[in-house]
Amino acid sequence: MANIAIMGFGTVGSGVFDIIRRIPEILKRNANGEEIVVKHILDIRDFSDHENAGLFTKKFEDILNDSSVSVVVEVMGGLHPAYEFTKELLMSGKSVVTSNKELVATYGTELLQLALEKNENYLFEASVGGGIPVIRPIHQCLTANRVLRIAGILNGTTNYILNEMINKGKTFDDALKDAQAKGYAEKNPAADIEGHDACRKIAILASLASRRFVDYNNIVTEGIVDISLSDVKYAEAAGCVIKLIGYAEFAEDDRLYSIVCPMVISKTSPLACVDDVYNAVMVTGDSVGDVMFYGKGAGKLPTASAVVADVIDAVKHSERSKKIAWTDVGYNFMISPDEKKFSYFIRTSATREKIKEVFDIKQIYDIGIDGEIGFITEPVAESEIQKKTEALGSVLSSIRVME
Amino acid sequence: MANIAIMGFGTVGSGVFDIIRRIPEILKRNANGEEIVVKHILDIRDFSDHENAGLFTKKFEDILNDSSVSVVVEVMGGLHPAYEFTKELLMSGKSVVTSNKELVATYGTELLQLALEKNENYLFEASVGGGIPVIRPIHQCLTANRVLRIAGILNGTTNYILNEMINKGKTFDDALKDAQAKGYAEKNPAADIEGHDACRKIAILASLASRRFVDYNNIVTEGIVDISLSDVKYAEAAGCVIKLIGYAEFAEDDRLYSIVCPMVISKTSPLACVDDVYNAVMVTGDSVGDVMFYGKGAGKLPTASAVVADVIDAVKHSERSKKIAWTDVGYNFMISPDEKKFSYFIRTSATREKIKEVFDIKQIYDIGIDGEIGFITEPVAESEIQKKTEALGSVLSSIRVME
Repeated sequence: MANIAIMGFGTVGSGVFDIIRRIPEILKRNANGEEIVVKHILDIRDFSDHENAGLFTKKFEDILNDSSVSVVVEVMGGLHPAYEFTKELLMSGKSVVTSNKELVATYGTELLQLALEKNENYLFEASVGGGIPVIRPIHQCLTANRVLRIAGILNGTTNYILNEMINKGKTFDDALKDAQAKGYAEKNPAADIEGHDACRKIAILASLASRRFVDYNNIVTEGIVDISLSDVKYAEAAGCVIKLIGYAEFAEDDRLYSIVCPMVISKTSPLACVDDVYNAVMVTGDSVGDVMFYGKGAGKLPTASAVVADVIDAVKHSERSKKIAWTDVGYNFMISPDEKKFSYFIRTSATREKIKEVFDIKQIYDIGIDGEIGFITEPVAESEIQKKTEALGSVLSSIRVME
Repeated sequence: MANIAIMGFGTVGSGVFDIIRRIPEILKRNANGEEIVVKHILDIRDFSDHENAGLFTKKFEDILNDSSVSVVVEVMGGLHPAYEFTKELLMSGKSVVTSNKELVATYGTELLQLALEKNENYLFEASVGGGIPVIRPIHQCLTANRVLRIAGILNGTTNYILNEMINKGKTFDDALKDAQAKGYAEKNPAADIEGHDACRKIAILASLASRRFVDYNNIVTEGIVDISLSDVKYAEAAGCVIKLIGYAEFAEDDRLYSIVCPMVISKTSPLACVDDVYNAVMVTGDSVGDVMFYGKGAGKLPTASAVVADVIDAVKHSERSKKIAWTDVGYNFMISPDEKKFSYFIRTSATREKIKEVFDIKQIYDIGIDGEIGFITEPVAESEIQKKTEALGSVLSSIRVME
């Protein structure tokens, strides 16, 4: 029998409780015979009417001081007091499982190191890609590869919005309103549509793959607020779609280029097939080539199922660290944005003659919108594209193209 | 330091050797500091001119009796002597890693049980889906789900052939010849195009997910040899593609329905986007919904990278069983084909009137081929579709539609 506690009884926390009560036999089998028992649920709200009211507490110490509890689920969200609680729990010899991407991206280095020292586990599969197995596959299954690149659709809200624009011809504003009406986007959608959510997730994946702390503050982050329906239509004409991509590329010298931004992607890429609120992470290894992990990147039960899988793993690895960790190397290993070349999709009101004066291109896309045309450049550095678009005069949009 | 041996120096075996020599530092880091060293390579052929000739042996006993060897890679293929060698190695307290789907599908129950008893590991990530992480994600990441269904594109050769028919309008025969010319299909392509390869793989995945031995001999297996270019075109008209699918569906009462056959799949399914020789496995869990794993299902380095990842896992779990196993329950838990209902795509030379007499359908597809039309039926049992197509008179083809 393994006693666990849940901190935070919101969407994910209640999902964790539901799964544990619904399929106890399957969980027991998968935990090599250990029954998973919820002993405490921490939440500041009142649950005295809940059918399991006896499990609820408002005191963190009830969990910290219960030596029979070996694994704690932290699904409170936010940095504080989640950070302090997690630290104390690991210090006291308990494993912690989390879906808190903010916490992992910010304090992961320290908390993973602490877990390592204490021979316990700090597991965070649910922090990226919701229910999709992606943390463990990168850590355990692609170990025979030098990871060359990670490119992911890491935010379901923005994927839904872009999908509505692509497939239903909605404007960005209408698609956003629709996403809000359906509960896919928050009232204040900034964290999603400005790319900050995806940024934290790609920082976690890049840290995991390189075993070095990648600070999300160092990742250039552009959202999808400037993507217009015209952009989407030009992309379609070029056999492409536009997706918000969390991107990390590891150079031969082990330096890292990372960015979050909308990218034009060929429809032949499996990432282009990721519709609706689904997420997908494509990892390129030097031996395996491209592998992709796809599924629901959010939602109560998908996210909870990743949390519970981590609980089972923690139970199976009781007092045996899985040794997932990264270190803060203390020097800058980020490739400056200008060193990386991309092709760019450009939408412009310049003349064909002017375009051909500035760029060496073969194909121009004219989709019948008055006074503008589009084209895709050769791979160029960021400073170069700035110079060239200035020379062009009138640029309506400029979006990176993923190779 | 962990000494390993490789049995079989063919495509995969030499790939394993290549990876170990190319990225030793990455492997060492991922194996928690243990250097991976190849001490013996077993092959009946002569490698006396090889730059590492000293590693080669023709005697299995050189590996079996070397107590310094803790993990052995079996990439010989075939049942014998791979079975006998694996058994002796596990008995002697060594872990074995394999890409041999034939062996896992046939003797997996016994070999996994033996590994469990000996507290060693028998790992087989490379046996299904080449380099794609799929065995470990199902075993470790989806543990908080009741698995409802597995549907996979498990054979790259047939996917290439169908893809050439779909995207380039080639006939089956021309696409097969092309696949043979490119080395994707064997001279005798029966194992691939008749579905036997996919059958062994879905049997392994179904055994893993249910922890009960699923005998591939009990899985109805239909290949793609009867798929015509017309079928592909009708599917296109219906917004679908045709793929060879390894299919396993777990009923509420834990019984299993499994089949390998061509299926008509909506283009909105991510499985429909799996082109070329790529493979993908979609797993549906009761909490997580659909997750999909995608990548190269064959080839020297992708497959070798899955083998080496298993080697690393075996090294990390030295004398500590990962407890991956299934048992032969000794009774029949397979759902008879007639209990499962599918919609069918029917191509027929019958009249519209006759079709509407027999089937209750709304849409008929006419793609301008003289004397034939196509339609999709409501979900019906196999015996029922047989009766109905007999009533229809002339059926040119009948293909299951995946929900």
